[in-house]
Amino acid sequence: MRYFFAPDLSWDEVELDRVESHHLTKVLRAKEGDSIHLLDGAGTVAQGRVAQTGKSAIVKIERRRFVERSGIKLTLAVAPPKQAARLDWMIEKCTELGIYKMVLMTTARSERRKVNQDRLYKVALSAIKQSGNPYLPELSMLKTFSSVIEDSPIGLRAICTTLNVLGIQDLRTKDFADHEWTIAIGPEGGFTSAEILLARKLEFAPLSLGSTRLRTETAALLVASLCRSET
Amino acid sequence: MRYFFAPDLSWDEVELDRVESHHLTKVLRAKEGDSIHLLDGAGTVAQGRVAQTGKSAIVKIERRRFVERSGIKLTLAVAPPKQAARLDWMIEKCTELGIYKMVLMTTARSERRKVNQDRLYKVALSAIKQSGNPYLPELSMLKTFSSVIEDSPIGLRAICTTLNVLGIQDLRTKDFADHEWTIAIGPEGGFTSAEILLARKLEFAPLSLGSTRLRTETAALLVASLCRSET
Repeated sequence: MRYFFAPDLSWDEVELDRVESHHLTKVLRAKEGDSIHLLDGAGTVAQGRVAQTGKSAIVKIERRRFVERSGIKLTLAVAPPKQAARLDWMIEKCTELGIYKMVLMTTARSERRKVNQDRLYKVALSAIKQSGNPYLPELSMLKTFSSVIEDSPIGLRAICTTLNVLGIQDLRTKDFADHEWTIAIGPEGGFTSAEILLARKLEFAPLSLGSTRLRTETAALLVASLCRSET
Repeated sequence: MRYFFAPDLSWDEVELDRVESHHLTKVLRAKEGDSIHLLDGAGTVAQGRVAQTGKSAIVKIERRRFVERSGIKLTLAVAPPKQAARLDWMIEKCTELGIYKMVLMTTARSERRKVNQDRLYKVALSAIKQSGNPYLPELSMLKTFSSVIEDSPIGLRAICTTLNVLGIQDLRTKDFADHEWTIAIGPEGGFTSAEILLARKLEFAPLSLGSTRLRTETAALLVASLCRSET
């Protein structure tokens, strides 16, 4: 089952945008009366029937339900990898795994200081439609390290280093009740000592993800996996 | 730090193969006397000095240590994804995360029935050198589903389905002592009921990875992440 995206599912009839209309009409060759499923990226999942195909397809909504967000509200603050394919993958996988928010940040050793925001938004959108994740993650682009660290919500705060104050096992066993977690992941060259010092002053605990070196996007996937909730 | 691969590190002097010699000599432009690190993919990590560059580079070994394998011996039995890039990624990421063994299998709904074994071996080799993982995972290519299920070692056995007899939380909290785990992951279309029945007869517990649909390679990364050990 493939989902369609529409930002407002509160009406009886919903008009799909150009891209979604094209997919429905030209790619899937849907007919009037066909049943399809829709997401608004904000928790609502709906089922409806195609009322009109073409460049502005219309869907008549028959049922809708609201899915409560559960588990940890994980914000990953990540220095984006240099290779565009690795960045796309990180966004796709973290979205499939149900991450709450991803902040791409610049650090002293960042290898990438520009990102294509539209492209990454499309990657995330495609991933929620493919996976049926009712929540589009919040993407926040290219904040500076210090602003990210200073503006993090209260809750579990950790910064990935080789120091092992927190480890994987701690993330596994931490209470999964209504928590906000912020975990900062550096570029391939790691954080500088000044960055780690600043983070520690703001109560970010050093977190080691294990003894082998993980690429930035692998570290992000590991953390998103450890925080994934059941429902 | 970049590691070099040599399958036998037990000698005082080790000759690198053509590919590794080229990388050392032409890409890194190493000189005689330079210190480098090596892996044999079977637990030995060594440090040595370049004694000769060129097409058959020679390294004089100065120190070596053996890293004991720790944590879960996880075998992932996976129906390989259709897209080659997704398959490469799955191998790369699972290797970085320290998986023990990966069996690529054909199932009733498999979308890919051929793989390039040499290419996947190279992907895994590159990932251990990049991550410093002392253990090259065992790759086993294109077994049939029934042979994989029947030949699995004794230990925790699970098959990914939408049934939730085991869940993510169970994998998180299971005892990490010396265990062999086999977890089977199906193709995009899932396992057939006949396949699930066969697996259940052989004591594979149904395992749900959460409510959103994960792509095959994402499911593999999630399981490899949950089983990653600290050391």
